[in-house]
Amino acid sequence: MAPEGSPAAVWVNGRPGGVLSPLERGLHYGDGLFETLACVGGKPRFLALHLERLRAGCTRLGIGFPGPEELRREILAAAAGADRSIVKVLLTRGPAVARGYGTTGAEQPTRLTLRYGWEEEDPRLVVEGVRVRTAALRLGENPALAGLKHLNRLEQVLARREPGAAGFAEALMFSSGGRLISGIMSNVFLVEDGTLRTPLLDRCGVAGIMRQVVLREAARAGIAAVEAALEGADLARTSELFLTSAVIGLRPVRELDGRACAPGALTRELQRRLAPLLAEASDGRS
Amino acid sequence: MAPEGSPAAVWVNGRPGGVLSPLERGLHYGDGLFETLACVGGKPRFLALHLERLRAGCTRLGIGFPGPEELRREILAAAAGADRSIVKVLLTRGPAVARGYGTTGAEQPTRLTLRYGWEEEDPRLVVEGVRVRTAALRLGENPALAGLKHLNRLEQVLARREPGAAGFAEALMFSSGGRLISGIMSNVFLVEDGTLRTPLLDRCGVAGIMRQVVLREAARAGIAAVEAALEGADLARTSELFLTSAVIGLRPVRELDGRACAPGALTRELQRRLAPLLAEASDGRS
Repeated sequence: MAPEGSPAAVWVNGRPGGVLSPLERGLHYGDGLFETLACVGGKPRFLALHLERLRAGCTRLGIGFPGPEELRREILAAAAGADRSIVKVLLTRGPAVARGYGTTGAEQPTRLTLRYGWEEEDPRLVVEGVRVRTAALRLGENPALAGLKHLNRLEQVLARREPGAAGFAEALMFSSGGRLISGIMSNVFLVEDGTLRTPLLDRCGVAGIMRQVVLREAARAGIAAVEAALEGADLARTSELFLTSAVIGLRPVRELDGRACAPGALTRELQRRLAPLLAEASDGRS
Repeated sequence: MAPEGSPAAVWVNGRPGGVLSPLERGLHYGDGLFETLACVGGKPRFLALHLERLRAGCTRLGIGFPGPEELRREILAAAAGADRSIVKVLLTRGPAVARGYGTTGAEQPTRLTLRYGWEEEDPRLVVEGVRVRTAALRLGENPALAGLKHLNRLEQVLARREPGAAGFAEALMFSSGGRLISGIMSNVFLVEDGTLRTPLLDRCGVAGIMRQVVLREAARAGIAAVEAALEGADLARTSELFLTSAVIGLRPVRELDGRACAPGALTRELQRRLAPLLAEASDGRS
């Protein structure tokens, strides 16, 4: 058994085990992207959506995207090694061809796939919800990087290290311009007057797969849902909100900065609709 | 001979050659710092200042700093392998102990040292100066990261990839809030009415070693020099400006976005004062 928190299996460019070049631009500059896939029954959830986001991210950063079938097979093979797991995929621009930030076009992307154990979670978290704080650190705003799940994650590392983080499942983050953006490792939805509102991610933040699924399922259910510029006042007024991520699915917030919140009818309705999608993995085509 | 642009020698945690763990937090999150030292006569320039900046950066990020003597010996040994070289040192929080952004305190930092060849530069660049443009991409503002030479460098990678970058030695960057910050890989000084002004780096940007040396030498020479909040109007008014970095030393700008600029008496005076410091390396104590 690997120690808790260590991956049970690692592949570099499709080869088991494997090590990384000290010239790796993913290390020197964070020049790459990642995906975190929750896998149940030996299969990844929402694989097609993850692959599509990775492809779109590569286009924005100008990184060559490997054949989607090759990547799909690799992720499916990694997921098949355990009943429940979290599979993390990193795709970087590859080892540097020349010194410095500049690219030559001759870089060969690096794929890194890791499978981590994923224990069953306490089902009460889904029903009762979690305690959340507001992070002191604010996210820098850069439209060129907004939405991307890229490898520049020092802000998230520092937010997790803030004093007072213990005892909270997550922290909500604002941007330097005062916009509510997301949790450190999740997206956030506020419920008000029967409408879902989630922060617009045009300045910073990661456009999460589960966020996308919730917006899609809300549309299918005829629930009004908007992406909007949200600020502190919007958060202060809310008594019903929830977090989403590929790993946690949808999780209600029961306490925000010491104030009681509670899941209402709309949150419960979405949880009912998501439950079958979270319990059964896709075949990678949906 | 290593191909041009590839390092001639690499050490990982002091061992020659060496590869990196796929769990490296420097790769997953950019959770680390780096230094780029210019070495002449087989010795690094301004080694003590680089070591002090690295130590201060570790304190801000909560990364354990290795014994400075050990690091000093490693850098001196790397520099001794060639007459002229660029030695790059990366120091990361090390391989992840657990999945996710959070740290446990049990992480063991990784040191990566690379020596690159460094050819003699065209002396006309120092005399005549270089062509500079303004980058379209703006830097995100985050005081928690401002000044640090950390590994989250996607903004710099994207700025280097902008269309129209060819033919320019450097691009000046503004922040999301409209402040002039720096070049992509250098700091900038504007000269006006006998005073040096360089952008305040309290929101973003890297506090460069050569920037620090120029401020110190200006003070010793009785030249007025201030760190200030500078904006586009300040830049538009300037006809004398220069770039600094550990590698280029001090380099005048001869053209900014198509407009002619020229080094004046103050730039020349600083160049005269810096010349002996750049020609001879320190013994690492100064």
